[in-house]
Amino acid sequence: MKFSIERAVLVKAVSQAQSVVERRNTIPILANVLIEATPDGVSFRATDLDTEVVDRAAAQVERPGATTVSAVMLNEIARKLPDGALVQITSDDATGRLSVQAGRSNFNLATLPREDFPVMASTEYSASFSAPAAVLRRLFDKSKFAISTEETRYYLNGVYMHVAQSEEGTTLRCVATDGHRLARIDAPLPAGAEDMPGIIVPRKTVAELRKLLDDDEAEIAVSVSETKVRFATSTLTLTSKVIDGTFPDYSRVIPANNTRKLEVDATDFARAVDRVATVSSERSRAVKLSLDADRLILSVNAPDSGAAEEELIVAYADEPLEIGFNAKYLQEIASQVDRDNAVFMFSGSGDAALIREGSDLSAVYVVMPMRV
Amino acid sequence: MKFSIERAVLVKAVSQAQSVVERRNTIPILANVLIEATPDGVSFRATDLDTEVVDRAAAQVERPGATTVSAVMLNEIARKLPDGALVQITSDDATGRLSVQAGRSNFNLATLPREDFPVMASTEYSASFSAPAAVLRRLFDKSKFAISTEETRYYLNGVYMHVAQSEEGTTLRCVATDGHRLARIDAPLPAGAEDMPGIIVPRKTVAELRKLLDDDEAEIAVSVSETKVRFATSTLTLTSKVIDGTFPDYSRVIPANNTRKLEVDATDFARAVDRVATVSSERSRAVKLSLDADRLILSVNAPDSGAAEEELIVAYADEPLEIGFNAKYLQEIASQVDRDNAVFMFSGSGDAALIREGSDLSAVYVVMPMRV
Repeated sequence: MKFSIERAVLVKAVSQAQSVVERRNTIPILANVLIEATPDGVSFRATDLDTEVVDRAAAQVERPGATTVSAVMLNEIARKLPDGALVQITSDDATGRLSVQAGRSNFNLATLPREDFPVMASTEYSASFSAPAAVLRRLFDKSKFAISTEETRYYLNGVYMHVAQSEEGTTLRCVATDGHRLARIDAPLPAGAEDMPGIIVPRKTVAELRKLLDDDEAEIAVSVSETKVRFATSTLTLTSKVIDGTFPDYSRVIPANNTRKLEVDATDFARAVDRVATVSSERSRAVKLSLDADRLILSVNAPDSGAAEEELIVAYADEPLEIGFNAKYLQEIASQVDRDNAVFMFSGSGDAALIREGSDLSAVYVVMPMRV
Repeated sequence: MKFSIERAVLVKAVSQAQSVVERRNTIPILANVLIEATPDGVSFRATDLDTEVVDRAAAQVERPGATTVSAVMLNEIARKLPDGALVQITSDDATGRLSVQAGRSNFNLATLPREDFPVMASTEYSASFSAPAAVLRRLFDKSKFAISTEETRYYLNGVYMHVAQSEEGTTLRCVATDGHRLARIDAPLPAGAEDMPGIIVPRKTVAELRKLLDDDEAEIAVSVSETKVRFATSTLTLTSKVIDGTFPDYSRVIPANNTRKLEVDATDFARAVDRVATVSSERSRAVKLSLDADRLILSVNAPDSGAAEEELIVAYADEPLEIGFNAKYLQEIASQVDRDNAVFMFSGSGDAALIREGSDLSAVYVVMPMRV
């Protein structure tokens, strides 16, 4: 194998691939990236056995071939080479070494045979559709904060992407919850997604996917089967197993009959919650919301360290209500609200609250109360 | 106690004071900042028993008094208050609480009595002088990287500041070493420093001192005794115990008869060392320098992972030489060099090397070789 590639192109391709490589793993080949050069260009492939990334890059290929080399090392070398350098990559089959050369720098890296590299088995996908990067970004960005980290509830360790019926019609929907809060985000259903099976996209895949979605103009090809999901741009393919479990029936959790409506500036609200939570050093800080005619008092009481209180002018026309929440949950939800106003729908002080962005129903959040 | 203070003034004073507070400590009062309000203004004092910071700030004092309150909490509250807010701080002697109020935010913090706060005993200082912030910054910034972290060699856990004789005459000198490398930085001796006893300024104090030295225009009043050192600006006083030990006779370590001279661009050198060191994952990475007529080859050989080599055009007119160094040490020293050129003076491959900044003798570094 022999090819030359621009340093910037190499940096981009290798850094995207190496990020799926787990830092600590006991199988040496999984620390490597598989480099494959064909007359059409070069691809860089990395995997952790659950997720696989393939990055295709333009290169001048003199001699096709393939080998594997430490992903972290190749990434660091590429980053440290001078800007604008042309990098010559050559594998020497006799010595089993990979030479990386640019300017007056020469590297000679240990390789492992390409045959040992575990390439993910291909699957028949039962549904394929295409969606703008911005749409997928919104679906995952606004839901991922609610993913559970409890390993025993593995079926909550991801975002549930599925086809659902909303008041607006059939939608592509992402839901995540950890049992304490929930996010439900809708987007118009892309053509071809109608028969998509519901899948739970694992947390790590959601994080890796984010890197494909930065380009506002990009269209992402999505393919879904019962066991796998694939997201692809013209140069990058991310394939992942989905979580083998059943996502619980979340619709029962979303309160339908909450009638007490609070409307509040989302930024002011998040900042005030952050301030009053300062006096408590506990991890699960409870903030009390005391609602009265057009007035919200946020308060925290931590007997050891102190107390804090802040008043906000809001729109609230219902009976007085006192209700407590975990401060972190409130802040995370408030920071998701893109519109100026967050709308809270309450029932009693023991009941879950529903949060919307203004009058928009395509993003709905639920948070469970805490006793205060 | 009752006073009002601008939020920006409070943030600056409290953040400087709270940084000496140790995050984990078993004596509750050491987590607190002592607030003292007099008709002239307010001071914020914090200590870890070895180091003490007092920050004086302008405030409208309505009722003088003093109390102590959690430094971290007061700092966080101040930071989170809206920009431009006027903060009203009131201590209630009946309840033992401190009220912090700004706009619609109200905080009520637990206090501990001011009598329990350990104020550092005053000392007779045997020498006092004044030095521009930029001069002290250079002395400490360029030496601190060589401070030892080995607790058993406690007398190396700081920067040795003392009066010394150099070829330029009597100087104020800072030296630090960990036995593997050494930095010796000189500055013109300020008037009044002649009789200063040599002191070892602890690592933490060097870090705290850095915050006083950011203002290029500031003059720093320095007071020194056998046991303590004090650095003061018009608003901030940092007092610290010095390390009770004898700094070793470092002059024996500085090679005087190294005659083989290498001159190299400091930035190119540091980058090349960084690149070739990539192939070794070990912490103490050895880089081999192979010198020949006007040519330097840097190389690293890590049998498991690979090898790297880079050539640099340099000025070298002596016999060929091969010598190895720890890559991190070489990079750290090269990054200290302010001038374009670093000058290395070598003797044999088993001897310490001396590094200078161009022809300047006021900053000298020594690094021990490694077998390669």
